[in-house]
Amino acid sequence: LNKRKIFNDPVYGFVYIPYEIIFDIIEHPYFQRLRRIQQLGLTNYVYPGALHTRFHHALGAMHLTTEAIEVLRSKGAEITEEESKAVCIAILLHDIGHGPFSHTLENSLLPVSHENLSLHIMQKLNETFAGKLDLAIQIFKNRYEKHFLHQLISSQLDMDRMDYLNRDSYFTGVHEGVISYDRIIKMLAVDRGKLVVEAKGIYSIEKFIIARRLMYWQVYLHKTVISAEEMLLKILQRAKYLGLKGENLFASTPLRLFLENKITEADFYNNEEYFNAFMVLDDYDLFDAIKSWMNADDKLLSFLCRRLINRNLFKVSMESKPFPEDKMNDFRKKAMEFFGFNEAESKSVVFTGSTFNNAYSKDLEPIDILYKNGKTMDIAEASDQLNISVLSQPVVKYYLCLPKEILH
Amino acid sequence: LNKRKIFNDPVYGFVYIPYEIIFDIIEHPYFQRLRRIQQLGLTNYVYPGALHTRFHHALGAMHLTTEAIEVLRSKGAEITEEESKAVCIAILLHDIGHGPFSHTLENSLLPVSHENLSLHIMQKLNETFAGKLDLAIQIFKNRYEKHFLHQLISSQLDMDRMDYLNRDSYFTGVHEGVISYDRIIKMLAVDRGKLVVEAKGIYSIEKFIIARRLMYWQVYLHKTVISAEEMLLKILQRAKYLGLKGENLFASTPLRLFLENKITEADFYNNEEYFNAFMVLDDYDLFDAIKSWMNADDKLLSFLCRRLINRNLFKVSMESKPFPEDKMNDFRKKAMEFFGFNEAESKSVVFTGSTFNNAYSKDLEPIDILYKNGKTMDIAEASDQLNISVLSQPVVKYYLCLPKEILH
Amino acid sequence: LNKRKIFNDPVYGFVYIPYEIIFDIIEHPYFQRLRRIQQLGLTNYVYPGALHTRFHHALGAMHLTTEAIEVLRSKGAEITEEESKAVCIAILLHDIGHGPFSHTLENSLLPVSHENLSLHIMQKLNETFAGKLDLAIQIFKNRYEKHFLHQLISSQLDMDRMDYLNRDSYFTGVHEGVISYDRIIKMLAVDRGKLVVEAKGIYSIEKFIIARRLMYWQVYLHKTVISAEEMLLKILQRAKYLGLKGENLFASTPLRLFLENKITEADFYNNEEYFNAFMVLDDYDLFDAIKSWMNADDKLLSFLCRRLINRNLFKVSMESKPFPEDKMNDFRKKAMEFFGFNEAESKSVVFTGSTFNNAYSKDLEPIDILYKNGKTMDIAEASDQLNISVLSQPVVKYYLCLPKEILH
Amino acid sequence: LNKRKIFNDPVYGFVYIPYEIIFDIIEHPYFQRLRRIQQLGLTNYVYPGALHTRFHHALGAMHLTTEAIEVLRSKGAEITEEESKAVCIAILLHDIGHGPFSHTLENSLLPVSHENLSLHIMQKLNETFAGKLDLAIQIFKNRYEKHFLHQLISSQLDMDRMDYLNRDSYFTGVHEGVISYDRIIKMLAVDRGKLVVEAKGIYSIEKFIIARRLMYWQVYLHKTVISAEEMLLKILQRAKYLGLKGENLFASTPLRLFLENKITEADFYNNEEYFNAFMVLDDYDLFDAIKSWMNADDKLLSFLCRRLINRNLFKVSMESKPFPEDKMNDFRKKAMEFFGFNEAESKSVVFTGSTFNNAYSKDLEPIDILYKNGKTMDIAEASDQLNISVLSQPVVKYYLCLPKEILH
Repeated sequence: LNKRKIFNDPVYGFVYIPYEIIFDIIEHPYFQRLRRIQQLGLTNYVYPGALHTRFHHALGAMHLTTEAIEVLRSKGAEITEEESKAVCIAILLHDIGHGPFSHTLENSLLPVSHENLSLHIMQKLNETFAGKLDLAIQIFKNRYEKHFLHQLISSQLDMDRMDYLNRDSYFTGVHEGVISYDRIIKMLAVDRGKLVVEAKGIYSIEKFIIARRLMYWQVYLHKTVISAEEMLLKILQRAKYLGLKGENLFASTPLRLFLENKITEADFYNNEEYFNAFMVLDDYDLFDAIKSWMNADDKLLSFLCRRLINRNLFKVSMESKPFPEDKMNDFRKKAMEFFGFNEAESKSVVFTGSTFNNAYSKDLEPIDILYKNGKTMDIAEASDQLNISVLSQPVVKYYLCLPKEILH
Repeated sequence: LNKRKIFNDPVYGFVYIPYEIIFDIIEHPYFQRLRRIQQLGLTNYVYPGALHTRFHHALGAMHLTTEAIEVLRSKGAEITEEESKAVCIAILLHDIGHGPFSHTLENSLLPVSHENLSLHIMQKLNETFAGKLDLAIQIFKNRYEKHFLHQLISSQLDMDRMDYLNRDSYFTGVHEGVISYDRIIKMLAVDRGKLVVEAKGIYSIEKFIIARRLMYWQVYLHKTVISAEEMLLKILQRAKYLGLKGENLFASTPLRLFLENKITEADFYNNEEYFNAFMVLDDYDLFDAIKSWMNADDKLLSFLCRRLINRNLFKVSMESKPFPEDKMNDFRKKAMEFFGFNEAESKSVVFTGSTFNNAYSKDLEPIDILYKNGKTMDIAEASDQLNISVLSQPVVKYYLCLPKEILH
Repeated sequence: LNKRKIFNDPVYGFVYIPYEIIFDIIEHPYFQRLRRIQQLGLTNYVYPGALHTRFHHALGAMHLTTEAIEVLRSKGAEITEEESKAVCIAILLHDIGHGPFSHTLENSLLPVSHENLSLHIMQKLNETFAGKLDLAIQIFKNRYEKHFLHQLISSQLDMDRMDYLNRDSYFTGVHEGVISYDRIIKMLAVDRGKLVVEAKGIYSIEKFIIARRLMYWQVYLHKTVISAEEMLLKILQRAKYLGLKGENLFASTPLRLFLENKITEADFYNNEEYFNAFMVLDDYDLFDAIKSWMNADDKLLSFLCRRLINRNLFKVSMESKPFPEDKMNDFRKKAMEFFGFNEAESKSVVFTGSTFNNAYSKDLEPIDILYKNGKTMDIAEASDQLNISVLSQPVVKYYLCLPKEILH
Repeated sequence: LNKRKIFNDPVYGFVYIPYEIIFDIIEHPYFQRLRRIQQLGLTNYVYPGALHTRFHHALGAMHLTTEAIEVLRSKGAEITEEESKAVCIAILLHDIGHGPFSHTLENSLLPVSHENLSLHIMQKLNETFAGKLDLAIQIFKNRYEKHFLHQLISSQLDMDRMDYLNRDSYFTGVHEGVISYDRIIKMLAVDRGKLVVEAKGIYSIEKFIIARRLMYWQVYLHKTVISAEEMLLKILQRAKYLGLKGENLFASTPLRLFLENKITEADFYNNEEYFNAFMVLDDYDLFDAIKSWMNADDKLLSFLCRRLINRNLFKVSMESKPFPEDKMNDFRKKAMEFFGFNEAESKSVVFTGSTFNNAYSKDLEPIDILYKNGKTMDIAEASDQLNISVLSQPVVKYYLCLPKEILH
């Protein structure tokens, strides 16, 4: 390359492609596919600007990684060009295993975790690229001696989180998620092989943890988003049920494969056809099918699809305790009467679930603060005023979804 | 409504729903469909953040309209609540007639202009809403006595342009399009029944016109965007050709209808089935089909679809003069040899076209500047330094598209 | 006014002058004087952009107040035009009593609190404006029946705090202080005569409280700022000491008056000359004098002035406990030896102090959250996850200042 | 330095100090003095946020220079560490010669151009720093072989302009001046020893030139700013007149020196006392004096000072032709009657002047655009649509200032 390739990014201005192999990976159909998978699924039903893709996020996280590497080097950390390239590849591909609405998909069509899939795809790409991803894979799997390189791509302060908070704030317009990512990155350092933050950056880290928490409650776990995603799950579960029964539903070829076959994780890895189908599956297959299913013969399926497409979503209540079973049964009876569903079907229109969030986890590797005297301390202890400890308590919320027609 | 509904908009912070009927229109499936149609079509191939929808743009334009109405009223312009409501409805629905990739669609599947369609849909909605859109339709058609109300929704300084420049800048990240919309709106006034700009706002208007021009060359007519959109056009033309011939291509039901039938504008308006199909057609139908067609039997169709989906786009050259026919023929011959296409097919892989832009048009109603002495003047004359006159010269550019394999 | 006056404000875009009397007050020399008093005193020694004035802040706070009034009215709160005007006047003038570096001044030249002074000046202006400030003064003093109007100008969620967080963030560039002021204002309501926040806004309030806390530690109580302000205090105390002794120091006429006379709060209110001098005293008098005093005969005075002007500031250590007296004495001895000061003088170059901050105070009127069921709850209880309670614990820090030359 | 020093800058986030000598220069009292000189003089009378200083601007311009150097190096331009350091020093000090309100000062108290002064001060500093500024001075004087280094600090596309447009936009809030500085810098290259812009950046350059022009008319030559600055000029001319006559006006010692002595450029350079006085003169000396002069015995001086301090500014009319002499005489007669001035004095309250601006100058070294074929072209020709040629026409405007009392 005589001129470095640039991507336009409203969040950072420009994103440079630092290595030729990075550009080649981006051009690969596996990576281009991420252009067709939205980062936040159905969140745009609440925040209409939230249409950004996993493609853009992956580029952004890579951009922050190059900045972090530069800072660490300027403070004396030894990072070779090969290592730098490998970290960039690893962060670029850290989410490559995501399918459309991936958490939903895992619970309906395809029971394979996206982390395992990311690794699997990286290995496939490594064959294509003649072993050039070896080191990236080692770092991704945390098998490389310089632990801090892994922390850049996967930890409580990784470039993944850093980018998604920035990006999700920008596209949703929820300023509560805005973080001083540039300041945080400037404060990174390596201490005894681990990624640490200089003490000066403590307020920025506090704000980062709080911002993440606020984003959880305002965006990621927003009750309308939960409603839409749960409805999508019920739709896919119903479609799979019908598909396995042999009903002929409209679907693209790859989607049909996942609807009409019972697939275990083992099946998936043993059958190239499944893998190839997955690698062309995206938001378009699902949404085009759901639009068609508005006219499906199956009453429950068409009921759910019409409501989802026309944004006539189920109402959601949230509580700090589980909803009692008898209350659920009352509502289900109402749904059976009102809409004419049978008992089994009624469980797809009146249902509960729970969400979980902790802004900072004490079970994971801590964010360490580095003081001028050379000592380090977990942010949860270092931050005596804000009491990050309090934030590290997990918060569980229970929700109940149902059509508003049966509310009264 | 005891509490006004709010939409989140990263561009303006919040967008309020000023009237109950506005909210009801937004909830209608016709309007919800705009959630599934991107404002800038394939522009995200160049600016990956440009995924915002016509839904969001319509809300934004309505928001600016409410602000403009407030300013005009504060300066003494008489605008009744009924008129205010009607203008808001009119701007909200001004683009409702857009289908997915609408300019492309008009030239391939459905020869109906989106302006006519918008009016048609407004009339359909007027039936649903028992005549409550009467005044909005009058204003939309410029049949209402207060001409300035029409100018708010359609003129060289309308809230449509104002919003799309803001919004397209925000989501592409191209700051050249940033305008001082708040300042411009604050400077609006009504003079003898027409919308004018107070003289203080002259620099902001200049900047607005220049910003629009810069956005044309940097975004709307970016050569890679042109390439992608032209490829899409060739795809749809080919699919229609095959559809009319009776080939069985994968397509959703509404898309199939447009592929397999020759439809004139008259047909469209006389056949409710066509209208209903159009009202559920969106980006998902088209992109899901194109992805399937990567494996179509037709060589040309699969060739074009693969390249488009995997972003292996045709190279584009731009010139200020048309490309000579013999040069075209040379390239087409190369394409026939290299890819094995026949002559007719070669015209779908080597082709030319032209773009046209003028930042300010002297043929349209002028933007009038209002001076303190009560006189008004066309901005093209008022702006003696910048020479808006120069900007009002239309600029035509010719482009040539072809696969890079035959470039040398 | 046939056209409303506008002020340019980079923070909010434009600030409108809502009433003619507001404009007249702004034009009064008492208010124009605020143009010459920086909002953050010597903070620009750390954040070079922090040069904004009390003039700009007062306009900004008034702007937010007009927005809040509009929101409250839209939700049914009754606010007459007279009341609206009065609140605007009250917030505009809430800080009019500030002198240059006012906290420092109170502890050196003039022992009058700025709150009392603000009221005094409002009463003087009320004479000039023929009683038109009566209601504003009532509201300012919290003697008016509609308590929520007072809360807009003085409470834990007043427009004063709202503006200074925004403004100080903008001009310092410390993004930690950015708050969603527009969202908070949109969520305000009146409940049983009190200002409350609708439950939807709870996250924005949390962020507001945290932002305020972060700004305290990063800006208002930044140790270098403390150092500069303490040095300024020592300078003014020394100058007053010399002035009272009859030494002839360079000073403008008004400054000279405060240097050469011992003035009690009672003296000040009884002597028009003092008041008139105060009303022309600003940053320019003080800084011009301090620059001159770099060449003063008094060794201590010139020592302090040179260091302050050339930004050769004392080093600051901060601890959570007071510094032991013997440690202080050791350092003072060093200072006596190194610089040749006597014991009394050494206390002006080696000294301690303490700062205090709590982000949310339980002793003040609470910020009340209004739920859909009509109940209200103190944010400290409502916010179960973040534990605002923790934030409401006051934090005290002790600091030690001394010249770096004697550190080792 | 084991850790790089950082300055906070709301415009760029952080500004790093790239070399130890840069930090030492910044700490020198000559440079610290720039903290007390506002970049835009009295512009804050129109844009109250425009209080930023030459100190901040110098740091910002240096920051952009370091970024430009990095870009040029990445494209193969050879720039040694010594050269990089020298350019940074040169840009940091390019404006060091500015006094308070420097253009005004040159026409009243001290007839020395700030460019010459900058060079003089750099030479003084070079003595202090033992010759370490040699190369910086060579580059500043354009005596160094690598011409493009000089262009970075002084040309139609230098980092000085780049920073002041950014910074002045930020602090005034006039978005018309916002430029895509990051994009422009990314597009810089060196071609045959000269600084050029890659063709991709042509739109950004157009926008830069237009932004500069808009800032001229909206900010730098705003008529209220002109009024304030002209009044300041009249004040200083009057004070000097009185000072030379031996009147005893309040003034700090350095200011007194310039008031009471007739000083030529030669005097200034031959008399160390003048130089030393200049190096401690800043906005505080002038404004403190002007405030005192509100009570001066001289009627004209106190008249002008009261109006300036209380922002009771002269009205300004602007025309494209000079104002006729007889009209001026009429107004002066009115001023004599109304205020009781004599004829000579009346010329200080009724007067004309002219302003001049061209956005792009054809007389200076052009901004060259570099095409992919290796050819370069002047932007004035390259930009065929916008017609930069038109913008390069100088625009002259004439203004008339007078007290509003005599307008009718």
